[in-house]
Amino acid sequence: MHEGAGPRPRWAGPGTAAGDGLTRLARGRVGRATLPAGRVSGYPSRMERLDRQIAFLLEVDKLKSVFRRNLIADGSRTENDAEHSWTFALAALLLAETAAEPVDVLKVVRIALIHDIVEVDAGDTFIYDEAAKQGQAEREERAAERLFGLLPGDQARELVALWREFEDGQTPEARYARSIDRLSAVILNHASQGRSWRRHGVTKERVLEINSRIEKGAPALWEYVRELVEDASRRGYID
Amino acid sequence: MHEGAGPRPRWAGPGTAAGDGLTRLARGRVGRATLPAGRVSGYPSRMERLDRQIAFLLEVDKLKSVFRRNLIADGSRTENDAEHSWTFALAALLLAETAAEPVDVLKVVRIALIHDIVEVDAGDTFIYDEAAKQGQAEREERAAERLFGLLPGDQARELVALWREFEDGQTPEARYARSIDRLSAVILNHASQGRSWRRHGVTKERVLEINSRIEKGAPALWEYVRELVEDASRRGYID
Repeated sequence: MHEGAGPRPRWAGPGTAAGDGLTRLARGRVGRATLPAGRVSGYPSRMERLDRQIAFLLEVDKLKSVFRRNLIADGSRTENDAEHSWTFALAALLLAETAAEPVDVLKVVRIALIHDIVEVDAGDTFIYDEAAKQGQAEREERAAERLFGLLPGDQARELVALWREFEDGQTPEARYARSIDRLSAVILNHASQGRSWRRHGVTKERVLEINSRIEKGAPALWEYVRELVEDASRRGYID
Repeated sequence: MHEGAGPRPRWAGPGTAAGDGLTRLARGRVGRATLPAGRVSGYPSRMERLDRQIAFLLEVDKLKSVFRRNLIADGSRTENDAEHSWTFALAALLLAETAAEPVDVLKVVRIALIHDIVEVDAGDTFIYDEAAKQGQAEREERAAERLFGLLPGDQARELVALWREFEDGQTPEARYARSIDRLSAVILNHASQGRSWRRHGVTKERVLEINSRIEKGAPALWEYVRELVEDASRRGYID
């Protein structure tokens, strides 16, 4: 499928620190080729295209080391972004019948799988931390350009657009996705007896305020969450 | 949306050990209602349906504590099944153009998200461990019945069928999904310098043998993996 028998320097060299997931070839290429305009055929071969796709997958593997504030259901530790993205995608599939408007489920699942990728560079911003939210949009925009820019241009543009659609929350898919994103945090916070809420001084009123946006995307889930929060309050999981 | 103002015993009681993700209501219901035949309307209300869906999500949250043999890309620790499922789903999306036959991408992503759920009960079986594979099919079949059986009947049946389709590997989606499942392990093993392969005494020949099935689902990925394994061998990542 490609010319030349010699070993091509496709992967990280031996001198590369473990943890630098980017391949050598991709590292060389990405700087001058971020979000190229126009054609897929800007990349000469399927193998070169694959190089970029795999380099992207290895780079975003770092999401497995970006930790959120909430705990996993058994309360044993905090959840990382990769795990959260899986729960989000699975919940989006299972609960699609609760969406306020008809949604393209594949689009929602794609959003779920990529929505937190910017946090490889920008880190997790705690939704209840107003100070941390300063500058968040700008940090995440830069991160999106760099990270999705590792992909072939057509896919990079597509995923940046999808991520922005989620952030803007103006389409049925984005609204439903945002509802599921919030729901998945609330059910884990409840299951882990509100320890993360109490640890970070988050009150019942704040939880209801921040999560009220669930209603726009999935009214039944908002009803469910309100009951869950009331239940958490009765049990003393939250102040 | 539902009658009655009183608190319904929807969630785990205060006496419930953290970690038992199942809600009390669901626990009571599931025993007599696993995989009911027929109609969705076997469940009286949307809220009761939601109870089951959330109970399922909390139960399969345990996948975050089922660890595989391979390391994450930076080599810092082993990967868990939830993280692996995210990588698998994301890779399936990005690499769909490499599928040997046209595939329904949403179906492949659904497979990715649920393919390891049986391991909540059955545990991870190392693909290179022939002894551990004894009885694996039976263990996993029981696990599928119990775990997917937590869902409303229609969804339970749908996901059990999807999981079996993946296991059987007889459709274009299942073949492509199996290729991506394998690819995602190989790229992480390479990125983490083959430490998991060496730790478990897995040779280059075994890696090529086990992963040769990639070719059926995605020939270009098999070419890529062969080169990656050759590269791993040259670097001494694998014997």
